[in-house]
Amino acid sequence: MRPQEIIAVKRDGRELSNAQIHAFIAGICDGSWADYQISALVMAIFTRGLNERETETLVREMLNSGEVLDFSDIPLPKADKHSTGGVGDKTSLIIAPVAAACGLAVPMISGRGLGHTGGTLDKLESIPGYNVRLSSVELRSVVEECGFAMAGQTAEIAPADKKLYALRDATATVPYVPLIVASIMSKKLAEGLDALVLDVKTGNGAFMETFENSKLLGEAMVRTGEKFGVRTEAVISDMCEPLGQYVGNALEVYECIRILRGEATPQMAGTVELSIDLTARMLRLARISGTYDEAKAMALEKLSSGEALEKFRKNAKCQSGDPSVFDDPEKLWNKEIQRFEIVSERDGFVRSTDALAIGEAIVEIGGGRARAGDKIDNAVGFRCNLKTGDAVNKGQSLGTAFCRDKGQFELIGEKLRNAYTISAEAVSAPELVKAVIQ
Amino acid sequence: MRPQEIIAVKRDGRELSNAQIHAFIAGICDGSWADYQISALVMAIFTRGLNERETETLVREMLNSGEVLDFSDIPLPKADKHSTGGVGDKTSLIIAPVAAACGLAVPMISGRGLGHTGGTLDKLESIPGYNVRLSSVELRSVVEECGFAMAGQTAEIAPADKKLYALRDATATVPYVPLIVASIMSKKLAEGLDALVLDVKTGNGAFMETFENSKLLGEAMVRTGEKFGVRTEAVISDMCEPLGQYVGNALEVYECIRILRGEATPQMAGTVELSIDLTARMLRLARISGTYDEAKAMALEKLSSGEALEKFRKNAKCQSGDPSVFDDPEKLWNKEIQRFEIVSERDGFVRSTDALAIGEAIVEIGGGRARAGDKIDNAVGFRCNLKTGDAVNKGQSLGTAFCRDKGQFELIGEKLRNAYTISAEAVSAPELVKAVIQ
Repeated sequence: MRPQEIIAVKRDGRELSNAQIHAFIAGICDGSWADYQISALVMAIFTRGLNERETETLVREMLNSGEVLDFSDIPLPKADKHSTGGVGDKTSLIIAPVAAACGLAVPMISGRGLGHTGGTLDKLESIPGYNVRLSSVELRSVVEECGFAMAGQTAEIAPADKKLYALRDATATVPYVPLIVASIMSKKLAEGLDALVLDVKTGNGAFMETFENSKLLGEAMVRTGEKFGVRTEAVISDMCEPLGQYVGNALEVYECIRILRGEATPQMAGTVELSIDLTARMLRLARISGTYDEAKAMALEKLSSGEALEKFRKNAKCQSGDPSVFDDPEKLWNKEIQRFEIVSERDGFVRSTDALAIGEAIVEIGGGRARAGDKIDNAVGFRCNLKTGDAVNKGQSLGTAFCRDKGQFELIGEKLRNAYTISAEAVSAPELVKAVIQ
Repeated sequence: MRPQEIIAVKRDGRELSNAQIHAFIAGICDGSWADYQISALVMAIFTRGLNERETETLVREMLNSGEVLDFSDIPLPKADKHSTGGVGDKTSLIIAPVAAACGLAVPMISGRGLGHTGGTLDKLESIPGYNVRLSSVELRSVVEECGFAMAGQTAEIAPADKKLYALRDATATVPYVPLIVASIMSKKLAEGLDALVLDVKTGNGAFMETFENSKLLGEAMVRTGEKFGVRTEAVISDMCEPLGQYVGNALEVYECIRILRGEATPQMAGTVELSIDLTARMLRLARISGTYDEAKAMALEKLSSGEALEKFRKNAKCQSGDPSVFDDPEKLWNKEIQRFEIVSERDGFVRSTDALAIGEAIVEIGGGRARAGDKIDNAVGFRCNLKTGDAVNKGQSLGTAFCRDKGQFELIGEKLRNAYTISAEAVSAPELVKAVIQ
């Protein structure tokens, strides 16, 4: 069947057969579909829709377009967490070592940042020497040795997704639930997991801005995971304000190491809370713990005992990262960086901290990517000195911008100032976990 | 504005502004839009729709993307005819010389065949030496000298359409009225015409299969022509059976020369009828004649007097074609071609002659193009010995296939036989002109 005939089916709002979806994904992989044919079908899918059966087939075909890892010979339950991405979202770096310390094997395949949402690989690369390019064989051996590994998607895993995602990004076809489900789940299901926890962000700093859409996405991913035999749960979590204290690659790693060292500041509380919640869900789903409360206690214990820190140190050694940052996290701070304060112009309470504005400001000074392939400056970023709900006095610092020079701050200072809304009345901090989908 | 932002507007079913449509067409011409971005927007347009204002703007932007010819210094009314294409549709080769003989200037820019519908340029090239690659300057000088010229679209005329059409062909986005209107009208409006007659084919051998869609297309094109100051009329004509007697490039030219020589066979009657009808409409619209009947009489007179034949002979000389074919049209028959008869298996009446089946059969043996750029064998084709409505005896020939060898006939013989339906009851011939849109 020619590409045109398959495109015409969806163009006219009809259902694609399994054979047609197979031909589409095979055509992406073997190059017999041209980019403009792929993007035409993707737009037809976006505007006409994909039903449950078509979505499941799409996931299966994308999954089977590449290598599916098999860790069945590792005698531990396999679990992972995936986040849809946000500003200051750094929980992977806490979750992986804590979960490993609790007895899970975590083969975490992550991505790079695009736009205002950061990527785990970029954060990890701010640890001097840390190597995120592992082959499947290396990934397995690091998981066996350290309990977890963090690496980028190899060319062998879900290759159709790589091509498809790049085209969707260029053709305004990213925000459609079945396509997001297929992209995320085809990669995660390739990890050979027993359990998967999804952190679906909601709010203006997230990919899905409305709670309703985030919930639809979470539900669709949970359904898909279960259909493919992976115990799956999704959390809808707040992304109206940046998560935790720091935004920016090196600064976020710094925050995680401080937490793993038991040195969390009050502004880091959100990072700790969400990381522990997600880890506990992984432990329960993977049947390491019988209940969520038991799992949570176990995760907190492994964090406070320092065992998780040691897991990360061991992992960093395995992945060629400099382990001294775990003893001296200030090493991650670049000495050339200048700090500029965002000061409150009135007394009151922090009513909101605009995650999108802060994320975009950091991208503007090179801390994130405007386009795929852009270089990133790991050293720049932002520190939230006060969080939503905190009281503030006129003249007090709300946040600190970490810039290369004054010129950078002049570029983004206004945007950062406008990110804060101060109200006269007391405000309660937003709830971090807004819903759980089981 | 980035392509993604413009694509997202139509993706979400909103109206494109004039500036956005301008940016789209400019982006096609300057290469700043990638093919996959163009095809994504085209699919969004196909599925979400374009309104009247958007369509008009699209036509204007595509028209203005290239050269607009100006023949205002030629002291004759300028008119042209355009057909949406069919099987055996050869009227241009009669209309242009007859119209020129009646005092019109006809700068006819035509296309090549694709699929089962033929193209005027391919037909003309079966006249030895005939050159269809004229520059705008050459086109003008041939029109001035001979009253008409027939040439291909230069790179300067509506360049956006060329790119767009190739992508639409590859992405199943051809059959949508506003896009067809924009493609046809942007080229025809570039000819600097006073009057334009559109021949919209309907039936299974046409691009638009249903009468209703053909009518919508005709109406939209007439509205567009009038908006741009060109007096425009459309005819909806039958394309359930092949037009006239012959199908195949050289054979169709042969039919036209026989008609121009006053040697039309009964099977050629449809070609004559439709050609004269369309010419008469051009003459009336261009105000050469006051009424349709007067115009028709004039066209018939120029045909029967041989003046049209002389016009074509002169034109062929100007465009380097061998003028001897006008004296000896059999020269167009290739001596190596073998003929195979399609014989009726029963007595009765020809109930239908499947234009699509015959057109596709001829493409299969190389008489047309499966893909743009394919080479064409001008010598192969088909002759309709009996037309719909004719009485037939068992064993009588319905049609004759002109093939290179027996192998070709074995390939398509069954398809050709199945193209004919014979019924016991008398059948009336189909009406050729089904509607007129003014």
